[in-house]
Order: sequence, then C-alpha cells, then structure tokens
Amino acid sequence: MSGIKVLILGGAASGKSEFAEEMVYSLGPKWRYIASAESFDDEMRDKIKRHAERRGEGWQVIEAPLDLAPELAAEDSRPVLFDCATMWLSNHLFAGSDMATAQADLLSAIAACPAAVVTVTNEVGQGIVPDNALARQFREAQGRLNIALARQADCVVQVIAGLPNVLKGTLP
Amino acid sequence: MSGIKVLILGGAASGKSEFAEEMVYSLGPKWRYIASAESFDDEMRDKIKRHAERRGEGWQVIEAPLDLAPELAAEDSRPVLFDCATMWLSNHLFAGSDMATAQADLLSAIAACPAAVVTVTNEVGQGIVPDNALARQFREAQGRLNIALARQADCVVQVIAGLPNVLKGTLP
Amino acid sequence: MSGIKVLILGGAASGKSEFAEEMVYSLGPKWRYIASAESFDDEMRDKIKRHAERRGEGWQVIEAPLDLAPELAAEDSRPVLFDCATMWLSNHLFAGSDMATAQADLLSAIAACPAAVVTVTNEVGQGIVPDNALARQFREAQGRLNIALARQADCVVQVIAGLPNVLKGTLP
Repeated sequence: MSGIKVLILGGAASGKSEFAEEMVYSLGPKWRYIASAESFDDEMRDKIKRHAERRGEGWQVIEAPLDLAPELAAEDSRPVLFDCATMWLSNHLFAGSDMATAQADLLSAIAACPAAVVTVTNEVGQGIVPDNALARQFREAQGRLNIALARQADCVVQVIAGLPNVLKGTLP
Repeated sequence: MSGIKVLILGGAASGKSEFAEEMVYSLGPKWRYIASAESFDDEMRDKIKRHAERRGEGWQVIEAPLDLAPELAAEDSRPVLFDCATMWLSNHLFAGSDMATAQADLLSAIAACPAAVVTVTNEVGQGIVPDNALARQFREAQGRLNIALARQADCVVQVIAGLPNVLKGTLP
Repeated sequence: MSGIKVLILGGAASGKSEFAEEMVYSLGPKWRYIASAESFDDEMRDKIKRHAERRGEGWQVIEAPLDLAPELAAEDSRPVLFDCATMWLSNHLFAGSDMATAQADLLSAIAACPAAVVTVTNEVGQGIVPDNALARQFREAQGRLNIALARQADCVVQVIAGLPNVLKGTLP
C-alpha cells in the first residue's frame, strides 16, 4: 500500500511551500521534510531559515540534495514534504549528473514510497525566452520533470497567490 | 457596509486591465480610476494614453503613486479600479519605503473602503530566476503582496489571454 | 461549415505541443502540420527533429513561417495543427512586417478554414519585466495576439505540466 502522491506547482513566492505544508499537516501527526536546498550564500541561508522557522516542531528535516531514494524507501508512515524538485534539478545539473537516470530514479522512488509524498516544484517557463543557453536548458529540463511528476501524481495543484487551482484529482 | 473587494491577477498583456474595467462598469454608473503609473518615459506615457483612451467618459482619474488611503477612505459609492499594485510596489521600492508598513496600510485601506475595489496586479514569478538580486527581491515582494491581497479579497480572478480563471469566490 | 477552432496556451516545455497533437489525432484520420519554425541553428534543428519523430506517419508537414492563408483556405477536411503562433510572431517581427495586417490576416484565415484548426501559442508574460525593449515589445505583441486568438476560438486550453486547464468552451 502506497501513500497519496501530490504535486504542488507554482511560481516564485506564490505561496506554494506554505500550501504544501498545510496539506502535509492534514496527512499525519508527524512529518518529514526533505530539503533539497544547500546553503551556498546568504540569500539562500535566509530563505532556508525563514522556512524552518515557519514550520516549527514535529518535523524531521532530512537534507537530500541529490538522492531521495534511501529516505523514500524507508518503512515510515510519516508523510513527506519534498521541497523542492527545482532545487533538486539544479543540484543535479550543477553536479553534471545524467539527468535521464536521475529523473527515472526520483520518479520510481516517489512512486514506491509507502508514505504520502507532497512534492513542491516551480513553474519557470512562462516568461520571455532567456538570453543564455543554460537558462533555456534549465527550463526545458524543469518542464519535462514537471510533466513526468504530474503524470504519476494522484493530485496536481497549481498555487497562484496562495490559492489552489486543482489540475488533477482532488485535494486530500 | 463595505463594497466587494476583487483581485485581478495576470501576466503582461494578458488582458487583465480590460477585464478589470469591464467588471468595474458592471458595479456602478460612474467610476474612479486610481492610477499608480507615473510618466517617466515615452513607453510608459504611451501605455497610460492608450489605457485612458480605451476607458473614455464617466471616469474620475486619481493619481496615487504611493498612498491610496485618503481616496479609499472617502464616503463615495463609486467603484474603484486600482491599476495597479505592481506599479504601486515598484514606486514604493524606488522611494525606499518600509514595505511592511506600506503593505499593511494598503491592505487596511482597501478592506475599509466603503465602495467596491477592483485591484489589478501582475504575476511576475513564473519565469526563470532573474540574474540580478533586485529583480529577485521584486518578485519576492510582488508574490507576498499578491498572497496578502488574495487572502482578504472576496473574489480572485487570474486572467489568461483575456479569459477569467476564477480562483476564489464568484464573479460579481 | 467551418471546423472547430482551438487555442492551446502554455509555457516553455509545458507539454502544450504533445497535448495539441493528441487533440488533433482525435479530430480525424489524417492530419496537417503547419510548421512556423525555421532551422536557424542546432538548438532549433534538434527541437524540430524531436517533434517530427514524435509525430510519425499520417502527417503532411507544411512549412509556413509567415503566411498560412493559402493552406488554411484549401478545401481539405484534415485537421490542422499550427505550431506555433509564437514562432510565427517572431518570424514576422524579424521580417519587419506590419503586425496589425499580419495579425488580421492570420485571424481571418483561421476563422474561415473549413477544417478544424488547433493553434499552439506561448505564455511569455508571467516573468519579471525584461531588461531590453525588444523583449518587452515581443511580450506585448504576444499577449495581444493570444487575446485575439482566444476571443475567436471555440475552445481555449492552458496546458500546465501536461495537464489541461480549460478556459473557454469544452474539449473536443
């Protein structure tokens, strides 16, 4: 038996993480937070700190910038908040990973997780075409990853100004 | 008794202003237009002129680049079109305002307005992460402002290619 | 008698072309593909090749970077996939065309087409304001074109992570 799989899509500062947290709260009495972000600079450190303060007690924080499989395979019924697939993608591109393999491994690990998994991801493709090739590659890779995550999710929600736009399934 | 509060969200050239105008027309026989834009350059002057020509008679235009409170507190039943919160935010950031205070004041003024208020705002967070820190700060501030405006609105509508995607409440 | 007119809107790598192809498959046993893209560089050549391989047999490919009217006027019942209006717009801006005329011609040609026409277009206005004036002009022009295409379409669908968000009409 496998827990519900939810994908939360949104732009920057759209309220997607807060929305995802509220959903995870409703799925169990204790929770796991899989953090993809690494503290490279002050801007990112501030953001991680703000998010952690908002969450408070009851969360186990697991840092997994590249490989989520060991954590997701655990026999643990606590719902998982995976925040976020965009940072995970960025980490892999930076590390020079084979993206097809990395993506396939991520998708399998999420699908097989016995607990509920709420994945947060960014919409990055609705602006003007970026000048530099790397940014264009990133948004292609992000778009393909989002499509794959959405395909296997039970529920997909776009968050706009903190409000849900349900694209697939029903809110748990 | 306070009038309905509506938030209209959309990308650039999405038809959000036209949609907002049509809504305001349906809310009263005469209307107020609170303009945040200032005529810094030809591009902006052209845009303001195009919008004004489209609106025509029956509108009182109030220029309020920073502080809307006096106008919104007026005992005046004419519905207000506030176009737009993005330019207002930009004006405040440029002026070096304390944003927490400015945002709290704006939210209170809208909530307390006896007339209907239709606020137009931009979605700016669905593109690739901008290169420069100022642009990243702007989209963070815009995102947070949109979430706060949406939270207190009776009705929130995203406009895409001129078409409404209702996210909260029902169209007035 | 004129075929159904559908507009498919989406960001980069949102799955909009795949979604549009699936829709066109459901509309007839054979299909026409109107390609706006020209093979300027390797990145574009790769993309065109990938799309063509995905489509396979049963498609007639017509290259029409600027003028679709002759093809759309043909007495031919095979549904048309026009991919995409963004590249078409870019070609016209690059060619220095009069955009008002070009847009009016495109809209008339689509409206008058005896066959079903599924038009794919990009959402480019939901990121931060671009630094350069040309990019700002492009997103204005794209926004206005999308509004005009949506206004005369029977059905408008936004595609997000491969999933449809129906904005107008019902899916054929």
